[in-house]
Amino acid sequence: MSDCVFCKIIKGDIPSTKLYEDENILAFLDIMPANKGHTLVIPKKHYETLTDVPVDELEKLTKELQKITVAVVKATNAEGFNVVMNNKEVAGQVVPHAHFHIVPRFPNDGMAFKWPTKKYEDGEVDKFKEKIISFL
Amino acid sequence: MSDCVFCKIIKGDIPSTKLYEDENILAFLDIMPANKGHTLVIPKKHYETLTDVPVDELEKLTKELQKITVAVVKATNAEGFNVVMNNKEVAGQVVPHAHFHIVPRFPNDGMAFKWPTKKYEDGEVDKFKEKIISFL
Repeated sequence: MSDCVFCKIIKGDIPSTKLYEDENILAFLDIMPANKGHTLVIPKKHYETLTDVPVDELEKLTKELQKITVAVVKATNAEGFNVVMNNKEVAGQVVPHAHFHIVPRFPNDGMAFKWPTKKYEDGEVDKFKEKIISFL
Repeated sequence: MSDCVFCKIIKGDIPSTKLYEDENILAFLDIMPANKGHTLVIPKKHYETLTDVPVDELEKLTKELQKITVAVVKATNAEGFNVVMNNKEVAGQVVPHAHFHIVPRFPNDGMAFKWPTKKYEDGEVDKFKEKIISFL
């Protein structure tokens, strides 16, 4: 897509620190890292979210995502890592081109996920269950 | 693993609201949802993190993860969604059995990811690049 920052990075019109590239995917360092080594893995074709990526491409992407995660963790000596995909603006997606974040984690690194817990009303769990299953 | 909560859920020794199950994976509602419909997708075999899951199992898991995400988003009329995997305690992993969170998102739902940005020193980007690539 002509006005997509990540498409421009793929084309080389915007510079980036590329870590891995094949015909389907690109991995590069996030320029605003949550921790040093924070890496983005993206499909080269433009899709907006996880659910837009064709399943065969997603399988290839996942395979490389795993390999790249291993390398990021080893290279940074991380104690752990988050793999995160934000889909749509409401979920924190800034660039509307599907991307996995690999974030190496360290003690007291200042990161936190605020996930206040919601509570199901009586009988609501079953309603959600049935509704989700109806779409499977 | 005998003392793993998710292994007990898979065996049926601990009750859960199951949404999907096949020979390789299980999807069920998180009992402490960040939003209603918050779903966990796990491999049935016990692996601790993303990098421990054999690649062929990960591919199968990803395929179902995508289908289940579509269903969760439709069923909850979510505006967006996060797919998150916390790996190791330092990254927020509570149950040490690999699991993907699918969290449907809505405006003003109280969720927030605190990702304070770090800064690379001069020349450090290239060092990280070279080190990560050396492990690929």
